[in-house]
Amino acid sequence: MADMVSNAVERLVPTEVNGKPQVPFQGAGKYEPTGRKAAPPIRACHHYGLDKRVGDLRAALEKVGLRDGMTIGMHHHMRNGDMVAVALFDAIASMGIKDIVFAPSAVFPCHEPLIQHLESGVIHHIEGSMNGPIGKYASEGHMRGLGVLRSHGGRYQAIQDGDLHIDVGIIPAPSADRMGNATGAYGPSACGSLGFALADSEYADQVIVVTDHLVEVPCLPWEIQGMNVDVVVEMEKIGDPAKIVSGTTRLTKSPTRLLIAQYVADFIEAAGFLGKPFQAGAGGISLAALSFIADRMRERGLKAPFARGGSTKVLVDMLEEGLIGAILDGQTFDLDGVRSIGQNPRHVPTTPFTSYNYHGKGNWAPYVATAVLGATEVDINFQANVVTHSDGYLLHGIGGWQNTLFGECSILAFPLFRGRIPIVMEQVTTVCAPGELIGAVITERGIAVNPKHRNGPMILDRLKGSDLPLVTIEELYDIGRKMCGAPQPPRTDREHPIAVIKWVDGTLIDTVYKVNY
Amino acid sequence: MADMVSNAVERLVPTEVNGKPQVPFQGAGKYEPTGRKAAPPIRACHHYGLDKRVGDLRAALEKVGLRDGMTIGMHHHMRNGDMVAVALFDAIASMGIKDIVFAPSAVFPCHEPLIQHLESGVIHHIEGSMNGPIGKYASEGHMRGLGVLRSHGGRYQAIQDGDLHIDVGIIPAPSADRMGNATGAYGPSACGSLGFALADSEYADQVIVVTDHLVEVPCLPWEIQGMNVDVVVEMEKIGDPAKIVSGTTRLTKSPTRLLIAQYVADFIEAAGFLGKPFQAGAGGISLAALSFIADRMRERGLKAPFARGGSTKVLVDMLEEGLIGAILDGQTFDLDGVRSIGQNPRHVPTTPFTSYNYHGKGNWAPYVATAVLGATEVDINFQANVVTHSDGYLLHGIGGWQNTLFGECSILAFPLFRGRIPIVMEQVTTVCAPGELIGAVITERGIAVNPKHRNGPMILDRLKGSDLPLVTIEELYDIGRKMCGAPQPPRTDREHPIAVIKWVDGTLIDTVYKVNY
Repeated sequence: MADMVSNAVERLVPTEVNGKPQVPFQGAGKYEPTGRKAAPPIRACHHYGLDKRVGDLRAALEKVGLRDGMTIGMHHHMRNGDMVAVALFDAIASMGIKDIVFAPSAVFPCHEPLIQHLESGVIHHIEGSMNGPIGKYASEGHMRGLGVLRSHGGRYQAIQDGDLHIDVGIIPAPSADRMGNATGAYGPSACGSLGFALADSEYADQVIVVTDHLVEVPCLPWEIQGMNVDVVVEMEKIGDPAKIVSGTTRLTKSPTRLLIAQYVADFIEAAGFLGKPFQAGAGGISLAALSFIADRMRERGLKAPFARGGSTKVLVDMLEEGLIGAILDGQTFDLDGVRSIGQNPRHVPTTPFTSYNYHGKGNWAPYVATAVLGATEVDINFQANVVTHSDGYLLHGIGGWQNTLFGECSILAFPLFRGRIPIVMEQVTTVCAPGELIGAVITERGIAVNPKHRNGPMILDRLKGSDLPLVTIEELYDIGRKMCGAPQPPRTDREHPIAVIKWVDGTLIDTVYKVNY
Repeated sequence: MADMVSNAVERLVPTEVNGKPQVPFQGAGKYEPTGRKAAPPIRACHHYGLDKRVGDLRAALEKVGLRDGMTIGMHHHMRNGDMVAVALFDAIASMGIKDIVFAPSAVFPCHEPLIQHLESGVIHHIEGSMNGPIGKYASEGHMRGLGVLRSHGGRYQAIQDGDLHIDVGIIPAPSADRMGNATGAYGPSACGSLGFALADSEYADQVIVVTDHLVEVPCLPWEIQGMNVDVVVEMEKIGDPAKIVSGTTRLTKSPTRLLIAQYVADFIEAAGFLGKPFQAGAGGISLAALSFIADRMRERGLKAPFARGGSTKVLVDMLEEGLIGAILDGQTFDLDGVRSIGQNPRHVPTTPFTSYNYHGKGNWAPYVATAVLGATEVDINFQANVVTHSDGYLLHGIGGWQNTLFGECSILAFPLFRGRIPIVMEQVTTVCAPGELIGAVITERGIAVNPKHRNGPMILDRLKGSDLPLVTIEELYDIGRKMCGAPQPPRTDREHPIAVIKWVDGTLIDTVYKVNY
């Protein structure tokens, strides 16, 4: 086990991860990167013909020279409907290749079959969000290397900065042509935006586009540019459409969640954020709040210049009604979103580069007023956790969560209890963001504004005289304690880290440990 | 003067240019690049606020730390209507800064006032196409450094590969927002595609967007992404719209040129290229040929999957009529082109990266069947010249000309005489492309197919039995000799190079010398 050092949020983090030296988190906006971006190899046109297709995944991997120990990147726009990753590692296993580092933007429950390749040594470890079974597998200490969890923006940053070198980028593409130009906007496995694949396409040494819908040259729009692509391979089916996007977005019917959503809308209106740009998501409370917010904008004749998505029917309806001027879409969640992104020039696919890369010349995150987000835990210092449960299991990815905290006011909205476990803790199990970036916590038992957030005092001032149920975070903590007693601390083995959590700038903000149950 | 070596087309080229070692041209597709792409510095968001504007050009240059000897890049989409470059160098002169290398994609007659800054030492030399007065100035031996002429793709390649390092990229933008997102599709100085600015935006250490039309965030579509931009500056007027694009495209009325255009269309049809993707330009013969080609496609019910532009009314009409499936547009030449690129999702702005970069994983050039191009000279080995006149004066840039030679058949189309000077020479004054890449020469006196072009024998075979006026290149040469006698050789000083011509892969294909008149 590597040496551990304490970082700016007083969490122990390793000085080295999977053989690479690490920088501990130094506080938001404190770390100054140096050096230059990663530099992919220079290629020459005369090595590329007019048709980059090969017969199957194995032929593609042979063509790009996949070897033991290489790192493979992949986007997760196919979400829980992805059929490429399992076929890919079956092919790699059949080639006798071992010790691959798999660095997708995320894995999902559909990727549970990869556990056999972790067991057999084909995959050394996974760097990426591990939703569900693979997170559980890692939590139980079975993975050889340390998991490295990054936000969407953090993955772009890591690849751009050369912290994470991708040898082979795999890009499942709902439509592509024989040059490798690709889009997610249409095709039987349409997924909308393909933004998570940008970093792989730009920086990987070798790029393989995998499609089940070959179209005539030129594939338009070309969200992935063929001039970044080495090989194109066709598969019969790259995804299960029903699991890639929802057919329709369902709003929550839970009275508790609807009450919280109401509070969110009340808060946004009272704090003066209505009609300003906002970040939208696909969570139940966030969506319900959005629909309340749309009502109020309509009543007051307000129009927001744009919304950052996660696009859904609710957001698309707002665009089409003229309540928002544009959707800047990083991830398309439902069929209405897919239809809209394919047709509406004001519904623009974005990438983690424009939206979230902290090591760029600005990004979209601080341009929004509000982002309504979830969390598994928050503590009395407003530090928040989105990756582990209070029992210590790593079951979720960071997604864009860290990246969206830079707006005027980030809002964590959730019921105060999950089962019988209160969400407001003395100390979160895993710190995913420093408290100073959380603007407000909104629960069915009250709204706690963070006085240490840079806009906290201003927001508190604006809320004076409102009839919002304002409380302090300590009061929310006390309510939880009174109703549930002290929660069980997670049973973890502090001598056995299983993953690390990167901050948006590539520094280490916390460590996740093996569970002992 | 640097040592001179003979290259693969037996031209002497310097071993060093402006202090940098050079590779002589080794034959088309023969040079194998090594190494990795240029790597710009890593930045951090916390140094960029929500508004990147400063008061004026001088403030922008001070903010980015412009110093003596730095290299400034700029695109030429404002063409002969540009008002930024002169204002820029006036500002630089007022700051007392010297020895700037100016590396625009091209300068035009409107940039003649820059000569005073070349004289005074503010500009050391220009690397870029020098159309008109500045080319004449350089030809007469007045410029301190050597001019470096690159094709559109070659400029991207040079910046990408680190051969040409841009310290400060200046991006005149017909519309932009305060983040630096920018488009050329609309605004009072609309110019259509902004593709030539891509390399500067991606690779320059510092990027300044200059606009006369600030729009609300987000500027859509963002052809230039704000996350690549350091500073935004507003000017009252960045260009003279009448000189940026033509109001309307005028087809040639010259009977000779119309006859050549007719032969071009006949040739394309007889050689089996009708209905295949093609490269379009804005030259008189090329446009007239396009309109004949449109007629024939309509008659025969053919549809080309796409055309690469240079977009013009003729091409836009073909798109709207359904004769072509898409316009992939690198440079928008008239108002119909600008309107179309702003409205039609099948009229796509492209960049020298996708279209022409020879050091990419393929590019668009070989995907087209035909490109109809001009030349100032061609010789009996089909070597062609587009930059100098037969008197030795350097008066034109390469543009996309070199880049478009990789299709199934490149066609040089021109009247056999310019004034009393024949165009077909024994040896061209300046070699801009090896003969093997020229498919056919089409003049009013006949069509010469190049038997040494890779498709030459196939084309000759297809033309058997046609009534096209087929001749050999030697026959065209003889006609010229008979009618005009031997042309005067250019009066140049071979001890005094004034510029070099790069091939698409960054190697040196020829040298341009000082004229003595």
